[in-house]
Amino acid sequence: MSRVNENYLKLPGSYLFSTIGRKVREYSETHPEKKIIRLGIGDVTQPLAPAIIEALHSAVDEMAKPETFRGYAPDLGYEFLRNAIAKNDYQARGCQIAADEIFVSDGAKSDSANIQEVFSADSRIAVCDPVYPVYVDSNVMAGRAGDYDAAKQIWSNVIYMPCTAENGFAPEFPMETPDLIYLCFPNNPTGAAITKAQLQDWVDYANKCGAVIIYDAAYEAYISEENIPHSIYECEGARTCAIELRSFSKNAGFTGVRLGFTVIPKELKCGEVSLHSLWARRHGTKYNGAPYIVQRAGEAVYSEAGKAQLKAQVAYYMNNARYIYQGLKEVGYTVSGGVNAPYIWLKAPNGMTSWEFFDCLLERVNVVGTPGSGFGPHGETYFRLTAFGSYENTVEAVERIKSLQL
Amino acid sequence: MSRVNENYLKLPGSYLFSTIGRKVREYSETHPEKKIIRLGIGDVTQPLAPAIIEALHSAVDEMAKPETFRGYAPDLGYEFLRNAIAKNDYQARGCQIAADEIFVSDGAKSDSANIQEVFSADSRIAVCDPVYPVYVDSNVMAGRAGDYDAAKQIWSNVIYMPCTAENGFAPEFPMETPDLIYLCFPNNPTGAAITKAQLQDWVDYANKCGAVIIYDAAYEAYISEENIPHSIYECEGARTCAIELRSFSKNAGFTGVRLGFTVIPKELKCGEVSLHSLWARRHGTKYNGAPYIVQRAGEAVYSEAGKAQLKAQVAYYMNNARYIYQGLKEVGYTVSGGVNAPYIWLKAPNGMTSWEFFDCLLERVNVVGTPGSGFGPHGETYFRLTAFGSYENTVEAVERIKSLQL
Repeated sequence: MSRVNENYLKLPGSYLFSTIGRKVREYSETHPEKKIIRLGIGDVTQPLAPAIIEALHSAVDEMAKPETFRGYAPDLGYEFLRNAIAKNDYQARGCQIAADEIFVSDGAKSDSANIQEVFSADSRIAVCDPVYPVYVDSNVMAGRAGDYDAAKQIWSNVIYMPCTAENGFAPEFPMETPDLIYLCFPNNPTGAAITKAQLQDWVDYANKCGAVIIYDAAYEAYISEENIPHSIYECEGARTCAIELRSFSKNAGFTGVRLGFTVIPKELKCGEVSLHSLWARRHGTKYNGAPYIVQRAGEAVYSEAGKAQLKAQVAYYMNNARYIYQGLKEVGYTVSGGVNAPYIWLKAPNGMTSWEFFDCLLERVNVVGTPGSGFGPHGETYFRLTAFGSYENTVEAVERIKSLQL
Repeated sequence: MSRVNENYLKLPGSYLFSTIGRKVREYSETHPEKKIIRLGIGDVTQPLAPAIIEALHSAVDEMAKPETFRGYAPDLGYEFLRNAIAKNDYQARGCQIAADEIFVSDGAKSDSANIQEVFSADSRIAVCDPVYPVYVDSNVMAGRAGDYDAAKQIWSNVIYMPCTAENGFAPEFPMETPDLIYLCFPNNPTGAAITKAQLQDWVDYANKCGAVIIYDAAYEAYISEENIPHSIYECEGARTCAIELRSFSKNAGFTGVRLGFTVIPKELKCGEVSLHSLWARRHGTKYNGAPYIVQRAGEAVYSEAGKAQLKAQVAYYMNNARYIYQGLKEVGYTVSGGVNAPYIWLKAPNGMTSWEFFDCLLERVNVVGTPGSGFGPHGETYFRLTAFGSYENTVEAVERIKSLQL
């Protein structure tokens, strides 16, 4: 008699963004005349850059001819892409990461959900609170999170590191010693960044207690300030304690193209076991590589033309971020983020809960954001807006929010 | 102190196809002058059909314009693709499968590796022997397979169903009652098919004992005989016991494009729990959808032009299958498969083991196949050749094998 994985049944409700999607769909169906502006899910809106379009067309043409057709990709990604990543994202910044330490995948969401698989079932995880839900939910599904306390909205076996206005949204070392530490900077959802010195402290801490840091650097392209690290491998000692996750979704608009990668240095070990070889085994067994045409698109991100075009695209979104930040601040909102990240983190006004403010914005001014409480208990009363809309929609959304008499 | 998932350490050696890849690479590096013909990994060689190329270009163009750019796909796949699948693969064959019972993914390898996650850790799995290694390895990684007996090449907690020449390579009901039954027909690696009556017996068996069948129909496009089911949902009662996995890799040459899907009927339950909702939750949490351009390519598979072009492509490969089958039979090999599947299953000559024959073919005539023992203990002394080469290479490979004085 088959039985299900009961850990799945412990998950409360549905995945955050699925819930938002459903609420918006329902509102939209009952109010078809309303123009909804979505600054919620973090999806980009600008088209792919010309250099990427050109690379895609060219790769499609290759797939049309027997001489240049490509079947199964190498398990861990094509060398042309891994070389481009190693050179541009790492070696150019003085990080000693080799091409064969890079594992190409269909995106950082998959990688951040799957990476826990190579660790023991009794590993203790530490996460920031608020946090990207995938880190926690994937560990719940694996039975690592313990039981859910619905009143407190926490899992009994997860170590939470509150990120609050008081600590500048930067986590402090937890009281209990974790085995795995999830860090994401620039941060989703708070938009906060930490300095190289702060990140170095985390690397030293992890090396000291034998923990592994899973470092999600999906938003590094949005860093505008000096002294904010783009990669954890800028810190000394990171090669023995850190895995880094990267995405092409936000720096190159690949949310619908699907491409990301994970870096695992060869020195990184748990006891005597190389995590590089375990992850290689997982990739080889459970995955069949990213599409050839998509990997060629990824390569174009690093071409001279691609770099210039994407720099402009990032600047476009960061202009939106500034507009939201300043606009809301002017009318008295408490806002942060938006300087090194495409997210604005704001306090819901008048003591509203996150979901009350979500409903208020959706129903009264037809703007969709993301309730902070969806990211963890310390996200309650906060709200995330993204800079990934068009400029016109961003301006209109800010005007609409300003018009609310709250 | 972090620790690894020790189940990974139980896996002997590396994934079968990675080992073959390494052996071929090493031989090739030491013998750069040799022309190697690969009839091993099951990768296709014909370019994508014109209708698919056209759909890809057109979708790429859409990604270049703000009005038609697409970001995150719906979790479970675009409706245009799910509708095309439901209509063409199911409803046209009289199977009552709705579009919202179809989950689009990046391929059947990922799905067949991931599907075990929604079942309890103590589920007993039954597999054919020989078998596609991913079914077993993914369960090993989840701790469900028990311990490996290297001498017997079996896992202590896996129920094996031998598929031998004596039973026509069709599994018999196992002595012990399984919770999950993996079936793949037309079969990889043996190339055998089973009749609708035989499959109906399995559906009845599963419904009776409360087991779930995971039915891998990746090769259904190669069925040439009447009375061989293309889908398990052609059998009565399958909606309450079966999950079906499908691929675009072999019917449309998408090995390097990456697209597949899983069907989970809404009636399928374990106890009171809907597997459809668990899989939807997994998709939503751990996956971000197949690329838009790839889903448009998938849609083109079902266009009139696409259907005609792919019918010709399948016929091309099946002509190769016949050529291998007949050529080897002529010189005295014991061969099967190749009629409803793109695989030829042959007995290694002169009492050689599978790997001895692999080395012999690689080193003496520079032909790469797949050792049967890599698929399980009852694959020992067998060997798999695929029909996915070019016609010219296939002819040459057969001539080379015939030339061996064994």
